[in-house]
Amino acid sequence: MAKERKPIEEKSIWDDARQMLHKAERDGIDTAWDRLEHQTPHCTSCESGLSCRNCTMGPCRISKKAPLGVCGADGDVIVARNFGRFVSGGCAGHSDHGRDCIEALHAVAHGLTEDYSIKDEAKLLRIASELKISTEGRLVLEVAKDLCNEFFANYGSTIDELSFLCRVPEKRKQIWKNLGITPRGVDREIAEMMHRTHMGCDNDAANTMLHTARTSLADGWAGSMIATEISDILFGTPSPRKSAVNLGVIKKDQVNILVHGHNPIVSEKIVEAVNDPELIALAKEKGAAGINLAGLCCTGNELMMRQGIPMAGNHLMTELAIVTGAVELIVVDYQCIMPSMVTIGNCYHTKMVTTADKAKFTGAEHVKFEMHNGMAQARKVVRMAIERFGLRNDKRVEIPEGTIELVTGFSNEVLLGAMGGTLTPLVDAIKAGKIRGAVAIVGCNNPKYQQDYCNVNLTKELIKKDILVLVTGCVTTATGKAGLLVPEAIEMAGPGLKEICASLGIPPVLHMGSCVDNARVLQLAALLANELGVDISDLPLAGSSPEWYSEKAAAIGTYCVASGIYTHLGHPPNITGSEIVTNLALEGLDNLLGACFGIEPDPFKAAELIDQRIRQKRKALGLGE
Amino acid sequence: MAKERKPIEEKSIWDDARQMLHKAERDGIDTAWDRLEHQTPHCTSCESGLSCRNCTMGPCRISKKAPLGVCGADGDVIVARNFGRFVSGGCAGHSDHGRDCIEALHAVAHGLTEDYSIKDEAKLLRIASELKISTEGRLVLEVAKDLCNEFFANYGSTIDELSFLCRVPEKRKQIWKNLGITPRGVDREIAEMMHRTHMGCDNDAANTMLHTARTSLADGWAGSMIATEISDILFGTPSPRKSAVNLGVIKKDQVNILVHGHNPIVSEKIVEAVNDPELIALAKEKGAAGINLAGLCCTGNELMMRQGIPMAGNHLMTELAIVTGAVELIVVDYQCIMPSMVTIGNCYHTKMVTTADKAKFTGAEHVKFEMHNGMAQARKVVRMAIERFGLRNDKRVEIPEGTIELVTGFSNEVLLGAMGGTLTPLVDAIKAGKIRGAVAIVGCNNPKYQQDYCNVNLTKELIKKDILVLVTGCVTTATGKAGLLVPEAIEMAGPGLKEICASLGIPPVLHMGSCVDNARVLQLAALLANELGVDISDLPLAGSSPEWYSEKAAAIGTYCVASGIYTHLGHPPNITGSEIVTNLALEGLDNLLGACFGIEPDPFKAAELIDQRIRQKRKALGLGE
Repeated sequence: MAKERKPIEEKSIWDDARQMLHKAERDGIDTAWDRLEHQTPHCTSCESGLSCRNCTMGPCRISKKAPLGVCGADGDVIVARNFGRFVSGGCAGHSDHGRDCIEALHAVAHGLTEDYSIKDEAKLLRIASELKISTEGRLVLEVAKDLCNEFFANYGSTIDELSFLCRVPEKRKQIWKNLGITPRGVDREIAEMMHRTHMGCDNDAANTMLHTARTSLADGWAGSMIATEISDILFGTPSPRKSAVNLGVIKKDQVNILVHGHNPIVSEKIVEAVNDPELIALAKEKGAAGINLAGLCCTGNELMMRQGIPMAGNHLMTELAIVTGAVELIVVDYQCIMPSMVTIGNCYHTKMVTTADKAKFTGAEHVKFEMHNGMAQARKVVRMAIERFGLRNDKRVEIPEGTIELVTGFSNEVLLGAMGGTLTPLVDAIKAGKIRGAVAIVGCNNPKYQQDYCNVNLTKELIKKDILVLVTGCVTTATGKAGLLVPEAIEMAGPGLKEICASLGIPPVLHMGSCVDNARVLQLAALLANELGVDISDLPLAGSSPEWYSEKAAAIGTYCVASGIYTHLGHPPNITGSEIVTNLALEGLDNLLGACFGIEPDPFKAAELIDQRIRQKRKALGLGE
Repeated sequence: MAKERKPIEEKSIWDDARQMLHKAERDGIDTAWDRLEHQTPHCTSCESGLSCRNCTMGPCRISKKAPLGVCGADGDVIVARNFGRFVSGGCAGHSDHGRDCIEALHAVAHGLTEDYSIKDEAKLLRIASELKISTEGRLVLEVAKDLCNEFFANYGSTIDELSFLCRVPEKRKQIWKNLGITPRGVDREIAEMMHRTHMGCDNDAANTMLHTARTSLADGWAGSMIATEISDILFGTPSPRKSAVNLGVIKKDQVNILVHGHNPIVSEKIVEAVNDPELIALAKEKGAAGINLAGLCCTGNELMMRQGIPMAGNHLMTELAIVTGAVELIVVDYQCIMPSMVTIGNCYHTKMVTTADKAKFTGAEHVKFEMHNGMAQARKVVRMAIERFGLRNDKRVEIPEGTIELVTGFSNEVLLGAMGGTLTPLVDAIKAGKIRGAVAIVGCNNPKYQQDYCNVNLTKELIKKDILVLVTGCVTTATGKAGLLVPEAIEMAGPGLKEICASLGIPPVLHMGSCVDNARVLQLAALLANELGVDISDLPLAGSSPEWYSEKAAAIGTYCVASGIYTHLGHPPNITGSEIVTNLALEGLDNLLGACFGIEPDPFKAAELIDQRIRQKRKALGLGE
């Protein structure tokens, strides 16, 4: 029996996506939605977390008939082990990216590159001071060297307390200490997670879950936070700027290059190269009107935040961008890059270029970016794109029209600056109930949902309720396309939020960056808690990842909860096979950490859930609900 | 239809095991063999490595109908990713154990414990010198501090070359350099492996396999090697001593305590505590004739090597030891401890005590061992065991009779010492073809095999062919029970091997330690290669893990191959779903690394395979086959 295919209109809420999905169908291209259909139904053992492959006495599947694995592990232990490894995969992604940032700063500090430099010296010095590194009368590069050493130590075995724990409220640190989950070195926690989940180590689901929390905290307060801070130091701290979003940012008459991945180290050089007059001249020689650069996914966020480079699309748009037939080249670093992109690129003339040894793609061209050759390699890549312009088949080009304007660049520095260097206006607004609370909506797309339906509708519902929304990652594109990232969007907000945002001239939904930049949200929450003399868990805050798909999203969710922030997910991770683990995630952690997960696929109901939580928190603080 | 159960005689080759399996059946106890029956047939997707749970767009299963995951990853990428994480689980186990050893030495060096001390100062100084740490005129503890710093750095982000790479032949290091797999910090490689296997990172199976090799090398030449060297420093370098093996080492009239796990830090203190006259008196007061300590698994190997403590059994004997009904208490650290042991213990009077926060067991009592309280905690545990003696139900006690003698303690220091401090006699014996080669047989039991049938028969076949066998881990117990670990076993060896072993007074099968002690094998291989001025891959050596089950065994196999040692496995890891990965493992790596895996479940055929390899290597060296 042929399975009934989901109508294209149900796959995405966006016109640009739908148009490209129709074209993909015509062009005979399979996308993530098609592959999901082939992969449905999923294996229920894997989906519920009840399958184990951690040794070759198995693989095992827990069921009523076989309630124990060959080693004797029960469903609870297996689910917790799988979840622990899942989260540590996400932590490793963010944190290894953070390490690459340290190495970049290290190369700059030690004069090993001329291609990179320190763009925000003030931030470097500010962070050094925060971490008790002497700055007075010292050369900036000398301070940078010390900062690198401090950050490298955050990944090691001998650190008792991560550097940025200086930002964490004392009450929160005490909770971690009491539970034995004060995060130590990032890599250590990841390696210990892998060790604990080896056969015959941790066989207590709750204990494994606690270490999962600890590992995620090392990501949030070190790996990700270091990535964010160094990216600001090297490439500039984001400040408000306008940009545009939609597949319409791809230009018919220009050489189109897309950057995709997460780390700005490659893409920042591409930005420079596409502005190289010589290369622009070459493009014109080849018949193009110029060179057009657009972003995808989090590399797109990084460039949009700092350079105003337009955003072609989020996770589920990455394949569809190629389907326009007008993309000469996609250059990627790592994470969330669908392997299918090489194949789809081959159906057109789109070249896929990889740049990191840790993320090669079979069939892609590898142009290794290193600190000493970043600029030269970027030029090489841009030249490759120009060469491909002539291969474009105009008959197969179809680019959705129109772009949507957005405002980006709301770093904490900008927010504080807008309030005159103090949190008082924000605190006052919260106390007065004009801003009832704040919610960070983060993460991904997932073809199991109608693309961005939940991301957009949850955002709209929350701002209606006078709740400020902060967005990062792929939710940026969603809310941008919905017109929520412009000051005019205050018309969709409740009266209190509208008033405050109008007075500050900001949108009711603030773009704070890429997915490592959720560390900015952590920092802001900590600042607020410290300002009020309370724990983060006392604040009327929440996190949400309605359409998440990745291990990194699970890591983010877990460090949010462990940091005291109630976190909504559209669907649970693969833990439902264990009542203990599920109950712990949905309730038990609340007792231990003052926060837990909430699961709700419907964005309207999710808004209610979150609103309820914010009411509770406000009430407990003695504020009107 | 009821499944036909495997007859007990087919489950193990040993009388003690069979006797306990009959008793378990009578007592209504399920063991690993029963659980394996419930878990059979296994999921073919998981077994072939073709299932992916690394994001929630899935889980996915690769099949003809659905050849790509939702992200677009194909079977090759998925299999390689799964194998990479599998191996990194094993590397994390060994290496986190190694880190615990560094922390122990660090506590000793800094005077933070009175319970531990440096037993082999000469080895400490020798290793410090090897690693270019100044020793002259310095206090031993000062040197120890520097050594700890050096070792901690081996886990970090800033090390370019692991300390013990000074042991590696130059030709081998050049191969690693050319392939880009020179191992860096242990934790870094593990974290990068987790990063690479996140969705949208490494999407090239061969590239992922290379990083798997790199990660395993960090285990072999750092994590495991550091664990071994520090254990020798703290507890003494093993030297030949007699011990005994079999469930018969459990004593009917005494308080029986079993130690299980891997790290000697806990068990060495238990040894001291069971010899405490006060506690022995207490045991007698309670009606016992004394306190009897025996080992299981690798903690058993560690104690047997250094203290001559008898060995109750290997992996599949761990549950059966409890079935004797005569074990008061099992104290464990981590790894390979079946979660079922708590439940089985509850069916008798056997108490299970955990000691490491990273390995808690639901239902077990947790007595946390720390460096400052090791001795006090050990006494507490022994006291708990004594208290339970009165709870023993004599009617349910049945202990298999008889023990087998073995000789243990063949560290490299001992081997070199026996040869007058030089490898010349060994080299001469190899050149003369008296010893045609050497094979390390390592690893586990797996209920998919008749217990120890392959371990024992492969060993017997190889020594018949004048091939020296080195054993570690659970193969120790197997070969010990088969009477192969005594000098008299030369009668089972070929004429050349017999002659050499007789002249040195050693058995033809040498016990080198626990599973981290496979680092001793690496070191010996490197010494031999350096002596001959060749690469490790030129030597007539092989590794084998006939009945392996654990991620650690996969890590060991991989670092052996990456170090240039052909490695036989009784069954493949879960990689058979990818032709690329399978071919790479079985052939392709040979071109890259001069070694690969060979798979053969039949020990007689496996002996032929290995023999063939040794012939080739001898021939290439210009030696008679």
